[in-house]
Amino acid sequence: MKQKIGIFGTGVVARTIGEKLQSLGHEVMLGTRNVAVTSSRTEPGNYGEPGFKDWLAQHPQIKLGTYKEMAAFGEMLVNATNGAGSLEALNMGGKENLAGKVLLDIANPLDFSKGMPPSLSISNTDSLAETIQRTFPDTKVVKSLNTMNAFVMVNPSIVPGDHNVFVSGNDTGAKETVNSVLKSFGWKEGNILDMGDITTARGTEQLLPIWVRLWMTFQKPNFNFHIVFG
Amino acid sequence: MKQKIGIFGTGVVARTIGEKLQSLGHEVMLGTRNVAVTSSRTEPGNYGEPGFKDWLAQHPQIKLGTYKEMAAFGEMLVNATNGAGSLEALNMGGKENLAGKVLLDIANPLDFSKGMPPSLSISNTDSLAETIQRTFPDTKVVKSLNTMNAFVMVNPSIVPGDHNVFVSGNDTGAKETVNSVLKSFGWKEGNILDMGDITTARGTEQLLPIWVRLWMTFQKPNFNFHIVFG
Repeated sequence: MKQKIGIFGTGVVARTIGEKLQSLGHEVMLGTRNVAVTSSRTEPGNYGEPGFKDWLAQHPQIKLGTYKEMAAFGEMLVNATNGAGSLEALNMGGKENLAGKVLLDIANPLDFSKGMPPSLSISNTDSLAETIQRTFPDTKVVKSLNTMNAFVMVNPSIVPGDHNVFVSGNDTGAKETVNSVLKSFGWKEGNILDMGDITTARGTEQLLPIWVRLWMTFQKPNFNFHIVFG
Repeated sequence: MKQKIGIFGTGVVARTIGEKLQSLGHEVMLGTRNVAVTSSRTEPGNYGEPGFKDWLAQHPQIKLGTYKEMAAFGEMLVNATNGAGSLEALNMGGKENLAGKVLLDIANPLDFSKGMPPSLSISNTDSLAETIQRTFPDTKVVKSLNTMNAFVMVNPSIVPGDHNVFVSGNDTGAKETVNSVLKSFGWKEGNILDMGDITTARGTEQLLPIWVRLWMTFQKPNFNFHIVFG
């Protein structure tokens, strides 16, 4: 089903997801704090990605709006902000614009304030996904895709064989919506693991510490977790 | 190399590791707080395992001693206690008996005080393994095998195909010692991932929350993590 999809964020994750969704026929708008500032950025990003101005010129079918415009536009929403800024961005989207909608939460509560490796600003007995669900009780929060880099998210075949994407959320219908998005990205049904309710996002967010260490140790960004059952 | 190996603990993990090491030709002693109490236990355990008295009678080549006797006996030591009791048990072993030795730490700092699922009593910016290393600076702590159940630890082929065991520690020689134990258990060299120093145990201990949720959701205890690189 083609939808209007609004994405919180303009970084690598937001762009990669946005490009993929647009290529699949969805109407996509990215949301930012200040459209004038974001759309005039020419400096390349941390990962060598082009400045946002150039990227947007290369993707004329993708719209840019304020968090509020984007959240009003989207029939489905994606949180692809930095975890540290997620709640503020979502609040700027406006509770009324998030109510009743599916929010796919890809963010991780990484805290880089003490350098590398980051710790988690929320963990163990809580998670970012739960915090978002508590703050927006009328929104159907589904945590997924947060356990790999953006290029694997939208193109799982760049990692060979079977490997998994996890799904956590309280609303069955919302998880079905996210599952169909995942399948459209190339995820095989059998590799999508429904972990249960939104509290299971504690487990998937706590994969980030080992993800970061694997990346630092082996220097290969394209990898993923596969749960092998005996 | 056949060694005298002392194991902190008498639960399922300690017994399973102890049986395996004994079957490989090592001399094995399990350590407990009170030998008379432990060796008279007849009630079955949480996992349906026999009472310790019966188990010990079935394994006459495995010795039982106090933590101190066991720690003095072992040329290599294994921490297979509950994480909540690890530091007390290790302290009862005696710093002098741990000094200079390799300590394979399999324990996880699971906190069941609020029921299921457990949280971690130490996590994020610290780990049980680091706590042990700080408390016993003259001991060569190596974290490994803590990310799977005991039956997979000693018989990785019960989970099909490739899957991983992680190794964290500050001492290269100690990690080589642990690697050779892992290989004797059936772990393929390529599936043993040296994550780096002991601080990388934060990542592997933080796999427990998703491990527990996978176990609760899919009700299959024999599974493991495979890191698939693209």
